[in-house]
Amino acid sequence: MAKELKDLTKRKDNYSQWYNDLVIKADLAEQSPVRGCMVIKPYGYAIWEKMQQQLDRMFKETGVQNAYFPLLIPKSFLCKEAEHVEGFAKECAVVTHYRLKNNPDGSGVVVDPEAKLEEELIIRPTSETIIWNTYRNWINSYRDLPILCNQWANVMRWEMRTRMFLRTAEFLWQEGHTAHATSEEAEAKAKQMLNVYSDFAEKYMAVPVVKGVKTANERFAGAVDTYTIEAMMQDGKALQSGTSHFLGQNFAKAFDVTFVNKDNKPEYVWATSWGVSTRLMGALIMTHSDDNGLVLPPHLAPIQVVIVPIYKNNEQRDEISKTVLPIVDQLRGLGISVKYDDADNRRPGFKFADYELKGVPVRLAIGARDIENGTVEIMRRDTLEKEVKPLAGIAEYVSELLEKIQQNIYDKALAMRKSKTYVVDSYEEFKEKIEDGGFFLCHWDGTTETEERIKEETKATIRCIPWDEPDEPGVCMVTGKPSARRVIIARNY
Amino acid sequence: MAKELKDLTKRKDNYSQWYNDLVIKADLAEQSPVRGCMVIKPYGYAIWEKMQQQLDRMFKETGVQNAYFPLLIPKSFLCKEAEHVEGFAKECAVVTHYRLKNNPDGSGVVVDPEAKLEEELIIRPTSETIIWNTYRNWINSYRDLPILCNQWANVMRWEMRTRMFLRTAEFLWQEGHTAHATSEEAEAKAKQMLNVYSDFAEKYMAVPVVKGVKTANERFAGAVDTYTIEAMMQDGKALQSGTSHFLGQNFAKAFDVTFVNKDNKPEYVWATSWGVSTRLMGALIMTHSDDNGLVLPPHLAPIQVVIVPIYKNNEQRDEISKTVLPIVDQLRGLGISVKYDDADNRRPGFKFADYELKGVPVRLAIGARDIENGTVEIMRRDTLEKEVKPLAGIAEYVSELLEKIQQNIYDKALAMRKSKTYVVDSYEEFKEKIEDGGFFLCHWDGTTETEERIKEETKATIRCIPWDEPDEPGVCMVTGKPSARRVIIARNY
Repeated sequence: MAKELKDLTKRKDNYSQWYNDLVIKADLAEQSPVRGCMVIKPYGYAIWEKMQQQLDRMFKETGVQNAYFPLLIPKSFLCKEAEHVEGFAKECAVVTHYRLKNNPDGSGVVVDPEAKLEEELIIRPTSETIIWNTYRNWINSYRDLPILCNQWANVMRWEMRTRMFLRTAEFLWQEGHTAHATSEEAEAKAKQMLNVYSDFAEKYMAVPVVKGVKTANERFAGAVDTYTIEAMMQDGKALQSGTSHFLGQNFAKAFDVTFVNKDNKPEYVWATSWGVSTRLMGALIMTHSDDNGLVLPPHLAPIQVVIVPIYKNNEQRDEISKTVLPIVDQLRGLGISVKYDDADNRRPGFKFADYELKGVPVRLAIGARDIENGTVEIMRRDTLEKEVKPLAGIAEYVSELLEKIQQNIYDKALAMRKSKTYVVDSYEEFKEKIEDGGFFLCHWDGTTETEERIKEETKATIRCIPWDEPDEPGVCMVTGKPSARRVIIARNY
Repeated sequence: MAKELKDLTKRKDNYSQWYNDLVIKADLAEQSPVRGCMVIKPYGYAIWEKMQQQLDRMFKETGVQNAYFPLLIPKSFLCKEAEHVEGFAKECAVVTHYRLKNNPDGSGVVVDPEAKLEEELIIRPTSETIIWNTYRNWINSYRDLPILCNQWANVMRWEMRTRMFLRTAEFLWQEGHTAHATSEEAEAKAKQMLNVYSDFAEKYMAVPVVKGVKTANERFAGAVDTYTIEAMMQDGKALQSGTSHFLGQNFAKAFDVTFVNKDNKPEYVWATSWGVSTRLMGALIMTHSDDNGLVLPPHLAPIQVVIVPIYKNNEQRDEISKTVLPIVDQLRGLGISVKYDDADNRRPGFKFADYELKGVPVRLAIGARDIENGTVEIMRRDTLEKEVKPLAGIAEYVSELLEKIQQNIYDKALAMRKSKTYVVDSYEEFKEKIEDGGFFLCHWDGTTETEERIKEETKATIRCIPWDEPDEPGVCMVTGKPSARRVIIARNY
């Protein structure tokens, strides 16, 4: 067994350490010398690229186009929307100078005090301000609307406590920014994009999510409404996995973006913004993986099938290769990403452990006796079950198996979430049970005061007011005041 | 004719203004409020995305994997390689603080002096330093080599004079960084990647390029050798379009990156880096476009074919659509990107001018009489020639026409370059002719002194010592000293 695998912390011993270990040992990412910033390693980046490809296609199918806006934002722009600056000013990287010079004492370089910027520039924590300043010149009439732009970019928020993928100072994301002629159209767009995120999470990541709307307290800084998808990790904590904001006319007013409507009257433009980030990598890892390492959904696995030959000498290896290479071709012909690992410098046992650690969904092992018998051993990563199958028709079998695995890990995650979702009406019961994690469907009186009290007393927050739960009048579990429907409360990442 | 088109400056009147006009009017990019930074608009970004797709595929075919390294670089890293810091320190954006706070006087926000970084961070102008600091931990033995990483990223160089796409403070690029066990392997890799760039430029951009090596004076800061592809613009100026650097052991030494070689001895790692950027957009625009607007190579055009119906009433439009829609399907079936523009709010003449301005390679126009006759009018953007063709077999005809256009604009650019490439042996003649632009194949004595003198006296630089020109002894046109072969001298962007 590979040394790396032996050192992987068990989930039950320390879930948080298990996650950190796994990110490192599966070669996904590592800390960089720059505080809170990570290096995304090739294997981790390959998964992110697969996510990007699918999301980008899904966005474009809704009519969205990509564009690119500047990394740096003038400080004064941030201030134009009052809540927005309040939300982001305290955690932003500030560029104050544009030149270094040789240190007069001869030791390296120092900031050149003569190259001070007149106005400081902020590394974008998000781009509403620079984009709405740009949209002002793009929009005159209702005929110029809607504008549906997205950008794939890096952003920076100077978080005090960081964790790889989950919360890093710099992260990669996409941010969509749309402009509309009516409130209804903008709101519908914000909801549509949340549905795109939810489809992506469920169909590609195999991560079931709850869709809902955030409370006023948890809204994006500058939004009228924030929609969210919330996933449950194996420790019962919630992970906010994507948000879509209906911004009303807030940014249009801040940047004076008006259009002449069909009645020939000037009106402020309606806006949305929506984003998902490399945080999704964290959700992916924590939802499916186990004590043996990563478990990747076949729809996003960079290597979907690995084939390991088991041989005693070069002749045997050559004979196995003769049988395997046509199978590799057949699998590729079915659009499956295959690696045939006949490298000589590592033993099969090491390879097995390594591909388990890296979450490759299907492993085929084939030895000399298999060639005689016309068989192959198949292991599926999700259940670790092995079976021996005939080589004839193996490509089709594997293709179907990949779909089964995709469905199985989704079902498993959904079952886990259901088993840890509780309907609770007593605050005492809630306080007791929250210690073990889970989603709690509870009545809440709708006030920020009660919300803050729950947070202080239990470290749990209202994750969302779910879209798909029925209206059900009741009384707030904390204050006994009336409530129209249940909300989801959980501890979160 | 569209108003926008009428305002396009003619190339002969002011080539530079023509370029700036075209970037704006064809909706490719615009200046942002942040000095020297541009907004890449959806149409411009769509071309860049097409470039990225092809390059990314070509890189991966050579075994390169993508990864992502931090945006910010500690100041001390820059200083570790002496030439490197000399090359980049004078034009870099410096992050000094990580927080803003409310201005005590109530007016907006100010930098919080208490949130000063202990060490300043530089927005990457290029990533050799942070990457080689990372590679130190990835490399122990020759078995860990080669490492072949690329990243798609934004970088920043605080240039004093900027022009959209050609020279901007922030730009998008890819930077490959490879690590090798031998000097030979690294040098071969640097050359291989230059060949990838040259293939891409010629086959996709339809831009002929000269491959060669830079003089010591023009090398990348920290490189042993810099290879370059140089393209000629229509005004006879050179545009450096991509560079690939053999870095020797310079960065390995600066960051103490060693490996144990096959003889079990420690050795410094050998390196390359190579990059192309959104500057390629400038090369693309300036090589092919004309006084009517953009001319895009079919292999990179976001819209390859536009179909404009010409009708007097809705019945006619419906009838035309009935004929056109199956053709749209056929074209898409051939992998061709088609837009059927039956929008009612603009007249055909406006559409024609707009698609000409945007460089759509092929335009089909189809009216009621065409339907009767079973014909269609085809215009190709490169020559502006029109012809009437039978509708039967039109998809195949258009598919072939796109390849012809691709070849034709390449041939045209190559012919232009040849017509403006001169073999000159007299410095007097050179000084006279350089005023009209062009590439000059001249003998040079190999000294930086002579190179600097040519630059001072003529504003021309040695673009490269070309790979594909034969050895041909001669005497330097300036000093009369011996020269082993001709170099290419030109004014440049």
